[in-house]
Amino acid sequence: MSNEQFRILAVGAHPDDIEFGCGGILLAEVERRSVLSLCICSRGEAGTNGTPEEREEEARKAARLLGATIEFLELGGDCRLNASASNNLALARVIRKARPDVLLSPTAGGNQHPDHIVVSLLCRHATRLARYGGLGELGDQPVHAIKHHFEYAITPGAEPPNDRPKLRVDIGAQAERWIELMECHATQLRTRRYVELQTARARLLGLTSGIEYAQALYPVDDFLIHTLSELPASVRLF
Amino acid sequence: MSNEQFRILAVGAHPDDIEFGCGGILLAEVERRSVLSLCICSRGEAGTNGTPEEREEEARKAARLLGATIEFLELGGDCRLNASASNNLALARVIRKARPDVLLSPTAGGNQHPDHIVVSLLCRHATRLARYGGLGELGDQPVHAIKHHFEYAITPGAEPPNDRPKLRVDIGAQAERWIELMECHATQLRTRRYVELQTARARLLGLTSGIEYAQALYPVDDFLIHTLSELPASVRLF
Amino acid sequence: MSNEQFRILAVGAHPDDIEFGCGGILLAEVERRSVLSLCICSRGEAGTNGTPEEREEEARKAARLLGATIEFLELGGDCRLNASASNNLALARVIRKARPDVLLSPTAGGNQHPDHIVVSLLCRHATRLARYGGLGELGDQPVHAIKHHFEYAITPGAEPPNDRPKLRVDIGAQAERWIELMECHATQLRTRRYVELQTARARLLGLTSGIEYAQALYPVDDFLIHTLSELPASVRLF
Amino acid sequence: MSNEQFRILAVGAHPDDIEFGCGGILLAEVERRSVLSLCICSRGEAGTNGTPEEREEEARKAARLLGATIEFLELGGDCRLNASASNNLALARVIRKARPDVLLSPTAGGNQHPDHIVVSLLCRHATRLARYGGLGELGDQPVHAIKHHFEYAITPGAEPPNDRPKLRVDIGAQAERWIELMECHATQLRTRRYVELQTARARLLGLTSGIEYAQALYPVDDFLIHTLSELPASVRLF
Amino acid sequence: MSNEQFRILAVGAHPDDIEFGCGGILLAEVERRSVLSLCICSRGEAGTNGTPEEREEEARKAARLLGATIEFLELGGDCRLNASASNNLALARVIRKARPDVLLSPTAGGNQHPDHIVVSLLCRHATRLARYGGLGELGDQPVHAIKHHFEYAITPGAEPPNDRPKLRVDIGAQAERWIELMECHATQLRTRRYVELQTARARLLGLTSGIEYAQALYPVDDFLIHTLSELPASVRLF
Amino acid sequence: MSNEQFRILAVGAHPDDIEFGCGGILLAEVERRSVLSLCICSRGEAGTNGTPEEREEEARKAARLLGATIEFLELGGDCRLNASASNNLALARVIRKARPDVLLSPTAGGNQHPDHIVVSLLCRHATRLARYGGLGELGDQPVHAIKHHFEYAITPGAEPPNDRPKLRVDIGAQAERWIELMECHATQLRTRRYVELQTARARLLGLTSGIEYAQALYPVDDFLIHTLSELPASVRLF
Repeated sequence: MSNEQFRILAVGAHPDDIEFGCGGILLAEVERRSVLSLCICSRGEAGTNGTPEEREEEARKAARLLGATIEFLELGGDCRLNASASNNLALARVIRKARPDVLLSPTAGGNQHPDHIVVSLLCRHATRLARYGGLGELGDQPVHAIKHHFEYAITPGAEPPNDRPKLRVDIGAQAERWIELMECHATQLRTRRYVELQTARARLLGLTSGIEYAQALYPVDDFLIHTLSELPASVRLF
Repeated sequence: MSNEQFRILAVGAHPDDIEFGCGGILLAEVERRSVLSLCICSRGEAGTNGTPEEREEEARKAARLLGATIEFLELGGDCRLNASASNNLALARVIRKARPDVLLSPTAGGNQHPDHIVVSLLCRHATRLARYGGLGELGDQPVHAIKHHFEYAITPGAEPPNDRPKLRVDIGAQAERWIELMECHATQLRTRRYVELQTARARLLGLTSGIEYAQALYPVDDFLIHTLSELPASVRLF
Repeated sequence: MSNEQFRILAVGAHPDDIEFGCGGILLAEVERRSVLSLCICSRGEAGTNGTPEEREEEARKAARLLGATIEFLELGGDCRLNASASNNLALARVIRKARPDVLLSPTAGGNQHPDHIVVSLLCRHATRLARYGGLGELGDQPVHAIKHHFEYAITPGAEPPNDRPKLRVDIGAQAERWIELMECHATQLRTRRYVELQTARARLLGLTSGIEYAQALYPVDDFLIHTLSELPASVRLF
Repeated sequence: MSNEQFRILAVGAHPDDIEFGCGGILLAEVERRSVLSLCICSRGEAGTNGTPEEREEEARKAARLLGATIEFLELGGDCRLNASASNNLALARVIRKARPDVLLSPTAGGNQHPDHIVVSLLCRHATRLARYGGLGELGDQPVHAIKHHFEYAITPGAEPPNDRPKLRVDIGAQAERWIELMECHATQLRTRRYVELQTARARLLGLTSGIEYAQALYPVDDFLIHTLSELPASVRLF
Repeated sequence: MSNEQFRILAVGAHPDDIEFGCGGILLAEVERRSVLSLCICSRGEAGTNGTPEEREEEARKAARLLGATIEFLELGGDCRLNASASNNLALARVIRKARPDVLLSPTAGGNQHPDHIVVSLLCRHATRLARYGGLGELGDQPVHAIKHHFEYAITPGAEPPNDRPKLRVDIGAQAERWIELMECHATQLRTRRYVELQTARARLLGLTSGIEYAQALYPVDDFLIHTLSELPASVRLF
Repeated sequence: MSNEQFRILAVGAHPDDIEFGCGGILLAEVERRSVLSLCICSRGEAGTNGTPEEREEEARKAARLLGATIEFLELGGDCRLNASASNNLALARVIRKARPDVLLSPTAGGNQHPDHIVVSLLCRHATRLARYGGLGELGDQPVHAIKHHFEYAITPGAEPPNDRPKLRVDIGAQAERWIELMECHATQLRTRRYVELQTARARLLGLTSGIEYAQALYPVDDFLIHTLSELPASVRLF
């Protein structure tokens, strides 16, 4: 099996979204020497718990555990993100600079924080703008086309319907370190049991997959194959 | 890249469904030494053109071109197929005998021939029954669990909505022989331009994929991966 | 708050479906003196583990723990259930005899055992037939109209999409006894970790509801109210 | 049955939206001493009939009939409302000031006036922002978490699909006064038969519920119950 | 405008379905000399009110008012209809004999009587079987291809979602006679206010269309045009 | 058959969208003396190929072939379009000036260029604003209500699901000139085979309609008819 390393860019609206939504997957990727960049679109400054400085420091600590670079992108501030054309361009610039093979961004549907939805839409659009040649504002950075775009669901309420095929990623070997990673966001755990919640979620997806723990990714695009042998395993237990 | 050969079972309601809906894909698979069985659930005896004997012979000819074994399954006859529990069992028996890694069956949705929908539902259910240990009627055949279940759309009207990720299979190298394969069903081409229709469809899917010709498969199940390097290419052109 | 007791009829395709899908809810109901009947539409005779006799005895044991009556309905046998008009009538007869206020039956959607889907459809239809006056076959039993019809999802794959409002039932006080209840089905736990799976699922739904454990019910019908004070709490945590 | 009174905030895009979409429900609520605030996000200044002054006065007259306070919120003006982060915050401020138990806002789907859709999205998001502790702009108002969020459909075209469970509210006793309430908006009735239309709509929903008149509310969230006795009646007539 | 007369076949599960669901439309068609056949798939023998003989006579009376021929098709009996291949064939035979240009049949979705759903599916499939040349059982009748297939919703709960374009048919001139037509089914009006319900429904659809009364038809197929001038009016009032 | 000429306004986000998405239909309309205006919401200045000047000139050349007037609307620039209230108003002004009977605009769904989605939403909303009497900014132009609003899908990925009825327009007689029309956009054909792609798409839709080439339009609204004879042909081949 191929073990090609990827350049991965994970985008989140708030300092803890990425770790909660796909942290186990990222741990598995950096373990096999993929290169990871995080882009956080606010400092969580609207949250009830934690100052922006604390939130930023928590995210930086998590990034260190992940071995990732981290960038805070200014798009108007926590709870003030707009799905605007200029924000599309701002994210396209991040993509051009990071030059990822793989983009990970939040899902847009369901009943969830408005910022998650905005960042999802911005990422959908930014991947196109990143590869168009005529955008003057971005002219200092060469165009870039990503290879894969997958979405992660920050909460169970943000998951697409079951009838849409998804990727389940085995994070059994990463489960313990994933919990450490989530615990970096200590201010957010004061009043909400997010670690238990995310762990129960990964446990449930794992058990329905015949393994211990799994997190899901939702493909934005079709796959192109030449033979069926290029495909990973299907989950066919229940 | 792995070149693991598969045992493949393709199921169709009528003698020409498989060739029209996924013939190019099957040609690619047999080329790389996958082992192919065809199961046809009628002899097309209700059709306007062709006798059942002619239809059967056309299917056998196509099977020979494909290098596949072929079986005609009696489920009530063309236009008389029922989505019944006993037909579920009949198809489960076919699966147990063929012992495929991969099952290919029609999609169930859309505005299409009722038999296509019935065969789709029968196959969905039969894959479960094939692996259950307590079914006396099937007791002479050992249980069998397939590895993959993919569906193919016989007509454009049977395609699931665009927002459901699918597999696009490059059949550029098979296009010419696929046309020959479809032309085996000469009686069906007397009054309908099916070959042109299916070719235009594969051409359109190919061009939107950056290649010459493609046919689509719709995964029934989620995929399970350990790292992102296990995934095939995403289609990200438009 | 009202503590009106209900007559409840829970219908399952296999001996363990009800306990796995809504066992905690049933425990809470019988605790407050609701009257519970179980109707099982097979003896699980197609399953890999357990004989029909063992399966029946496991279900009877669970029924005793629940303080419920139990009936095994013959609809063709495990894996052989048909969504037929005569099976609709058979279930309508069960409803007329049990005279429930509340019917609990499986959801029909998703990728799940075909028998679950059949029983779901049969129950949808049987509730109508149970109240029609002109059905000679049922004439020995008076017509009966249920008050509520709710569906339960036996597996995560059988859950309707998130955007469809559902009822989350707090089963925190029942969690331990629910596990005992599920463990009655010992033959089914030999090769599958169903208890862990269902517990993780209830844990996840509980944590997203601000409580310890919850199971979900999906209303088939609209609710009719006179003032908003008739409504239970909304879940508005995340 | 509980008769807990609620603080209710109803939000509309135009001066007549609330009365047309859920006026009968509000009449029933104020009758039982719930406290009602109306927030209107424009003065209908883009409409063909009626000046902004007339429209405002009509809304104030309706508010008096309802015994409600009324506030006009400036979000850019009729036909100029944007689904922006700053408008999310403006509505969050209204929520913090009104401190409602229940928020009523328009549905977002279907083929309807763009302002309805914008106000729907703003309300969805504002309920979250109202309860977050770190939003400096709103810092003069204490955080507030609503208990229930329900949506109303201003026109038949704005109704969600039938398969999504909804609340039908019996407004038979309010029907006459509801008509008076709608007739406050005299300028809007010059060229369109809105009162007849809304009455026919409530009549139809009533007759399918076994009562005289009903209006619908669409729950945004799941309900949390401890026993089934907490639930209102299901509609099971047809 | 063309005034081509059509041969129309309307199919219903029970003696009153057609009049309730599309009676006004049929009146308009026969007025302009279209030729109408009714096919009723039961005698309503399971209903609470009315004997099969009374129900049949009511349907015959309505057919006389409509100037239509009427046929009662035996498919197993009221509440006992199956979506089986043999019933597909039985309806295909009816189509071949009636040779309609237009087929009207019930919608399949929503929460409605199971027989409505079965008849809907049977009609979908029968239109195909009616035109296939090889069906021996039907060999005594020449093949027949209908020109149009439209569906009608017997109850509001059977209506497809609003976002699916439909045909609204102006029945203002037929409203009074439509009521007479519905009143033929006197046994069904003893305990249910169907006439009021259907009238309120047609009134609502009319008022949202800028006319007095309308009933809806749901096209099964795409339309084929050569220029936009072939299209009827769009409804663009609200 | 009526041959009423229409005033048609076609709106596109980029200089080539209209020709690619519905060029064949427009050719058929101008042939029969409909009056056509094109409104292009950018100069394609973000594209990789072609300068804005070249792109504009290509669009003007295509407009000349079409015999259409053309207007370039400034809404922020290619890849910078926002779905804002002020852009809604800008498009409403275009509609008031062009006074079309028919508006053609892009579909909003699917995985496509963000500008297409924005222009789709703007057009949906602008048709309402164009007919409202109180919009001061537009006061120099009289209100205007269009008669029909249809959407076209620029790419296959932008097509609504198959189960939504659409209009298929026979463009067999226009196919050659449509290719010429698309070839006006020479800069865009340097690196992408758009002409082949769109031709294969029209060929596929044609063949499934029993003709040579077809393009599709998606109705935004219901149709209102008085008799079934007002309807065009249904497509009922497969």
